[in-house]
Amino acid sequence: MAKKQRQCLIGLDIGGTKLMTVVVDEKFKVLGRFRMKTRGKGKARKGGSLFDRVVECVDGAMKETKIGPKELLGIGVGSPGPLDPKTGVIIDTPNIGWKNFPLADKLSSRFKAPVAVDNDVNLGTYGEFHFGAARGGRHVLGVFPGTGIGGGILIDGRIHHGASGAAGEIGHVVFDPEGPLCGCGQRGCLEAYAGRLPIAGQLAGLVIRGQARHLAEEAGSDLRDIRSSQIAAAIAGGDKMVEQIVRREAARIGLAAVNVVNVLSPDTVVLGGGMVEAMPRLYVEEVSRAIKENALPFLAKFVTVVATKLGDDAVAMGAAKLVAERLAENQKNGKNTRNAKKK
Amino acid sequence: MAKKQRQCLIGLDIGGTKLMTVVVDEKFKVLGRFRMKTRGKGKARKGGSLFDRVVECVDGAMKETKIGPKELLGIGVGSPGPLDPKTGVIIDTPNIGWKNFPLADKLSSRFKAPVAVDNDVNLGTYGEFHFGAARGGRHVLGVFPGTGIGGGILIDGRIHHGASGAAGEIGHVVFDPEGPLCGCGQRGCLEAYAGRLPIAGQLAGLVIRGQARHLAEEAGSDLRDIRSSQIAAAIAGGDKMVEQIVRREAARIGLAAVNVVNVLSPDTVVLGGGMVEAMPRLYVEEVSRAIKENALPFLAKFVTVVATKLGDDAVAMGAAKLVAERLAENQKNGKNTRNAKKK
Repeated sequence: MAKKQRQCLIGLDIGGTKLMTVVVDEKFKVLGRFRMKTRGKGKARKGGSLFDRVVECVDGAMKETKIGPKELLGIGVGSPGPLDPKTGVIIDTPNIGWKNFPLADKLSSRFKAPVAVDNDVNLGTYGEFHFGAARGGRHVLGVFPGTGIGGGILIDGRIHHGASGAAGEIGHVVFDPEGPLCGCGQRGCLEAYAGRLPIAGQLAGLVIRGQARHLAEEAGSDLRDIRSSQIAAAIAGGDKMVEQIVRREAARIGLAAVNVVNVLSPDTVVLGGGMVEAMPRLYVEEVSRAIKENALPFLAKFVTVVATKLGDDAVAMGAAKLVAERLAENQKNGKNTRNAKKK
Repeated sequence: MAKKQRQCLIGLDIGGTKLMTVVVDEKFKVLGRFRMKTRGKGKARKGGSLFDRVVECVDGAMKETKIGPKELLGIGVGSPGPLDPKTGVIIDTPNIGWKNFPLADKLSSRFKAPVAVDNDVNLGTYGEFHFGAARGGRHVLGVFPGTGIGGGILIDGRIHHGASGAAGEIGHVVFDPEGPLCGCGQRGCLEAYAGRLPIAGQLAGLVIRGQARHLAEEAGSDLRDIRSSQIAAAIAGGDKMVEQIVRREAARIGLAAVNVVNVLSPDTVVLGGGMVEAMPRLYVEEVSRAIKENALPFLAKFVTVVATKLGDDAVAMGAAKLVAERLAENQKNGKNTRNAKKK
């Protein structure tokens, strides 16, 4: 019996530490996953560029799920920004080293398939909206605390890009213009308090002062080793001061969300990223409390706060959905679907 | 020679201190204005409700411009909120005393004309977008500091209402949850620092300490007498400490705008309201500076900060535009245009 040709989409999440793909069918059923470290180790990886690794990862996903070039309908990509979501050019990502890099064009030529690119956190929010914890929402704020604190905004179920293409930077809401230095060069941004590194900095202090027994066993005082899962384990083990510090910074994320609630009036706040995946309840509690206590009551009562359901898949699933929509739009407009990246 | 029948729209701005109407033709040319105090004085006014005065004001506008009932296409109304922009019900306005008041319905029955209602600052922003300082923008933040600090958001040129219908409350962006008490019952909101009353409170202190000679002459130390125009006159007269205080609070409005810029990425920030009308240059300078210094550079560079061009007409002009659009929509959908309030 002849096998019916499958039609697949690939969603790719380009992170600072890992590349992650999902392969889905046209109904967004996950057929397989493939992941790699963003930066290679050992001799074999030395010469290769990040783009080579991205290609390798997509190839790997196709092999993993045994799909051929003709079965690949399109590739959606979530990348750190700023980037131009219309052209798929990555404008500047100090983290991963691209500058004015035409990612959509290059990936599209390489795989002879349409490619749509958007900001990773926008797509994480979009993924949760279509397939995860934010289903049923309409105006959605996504906050993804991890190394940085990314944000995504959906208005009427569509990603809001704003004038710059880079809207949603909740990590750079300023609490105190004289506050601690942020990675962005400004001072007192949310990320400079509530990102994983400044939290780890506070926690390392506890370890050194002997105030965090479990964390000392789990991680020690090197900020590189104090990861989300170590922090969660220490709190679960009973390190009260670790919990206090994390709750305080989760509440600060809540305060930033309060300001977005008062201005945008979303119905859903979805939290994701490494810290939330490790401690979903803690984050939902603190953000909910901040909104309840500090947002205007008339606006607060419309908001539900939820934690990611898709976890690690959120960005890649949102990316797959994005390229599917781009394909549908292009078909409607009678455009060549091999060129989905142009809107 | 028979006169061609005119077709007019009325825009009405319901403020805490005054009611203000514009009458425009179909091309939004202003044919006339009519205004009244919101609260009547003397015996004749005693028994009348606010709704009676609103009716009186619309009547006055029609007489002023000699338009008859058949020439009146519709009435647009800007009111303090929260309100339901779909039904035109005013949900709760402590300032003017309406609670679940079906303003659109009542006004529509009274004048046998379609009525559209929205938040006053939304419509001020909308007026500036269509006819004033924010023309050419697409994603617009309006900030109107006066007694309160109102905000309005336009996304893709449309008023953003959010899940509650009441988005845009930039006056209640929280700077410090332990800060001064705000009229809304929360603490540390922008309005609790940078509204006209807390500014007047600081300035009255200067007057009492003899540190504001011109303001002492202009206004004295009673907060009721320290109005925007008195403050502007004192600064123009050379009261340096008055200027310092106002600049500091204008900069705080700038910081609140920074957070909206980082999240929404607007192309235009339009400032209006009493304080800005009295001191447009000071406010534009401080808000521009805050955005330039504190917003993410990639988002900040897309933003232009402007001061109101329509001044007192902004809300009423936005209201006239709103009802015109509602009429066009209803006509497109083949609905009875006598019932524009339902979307």
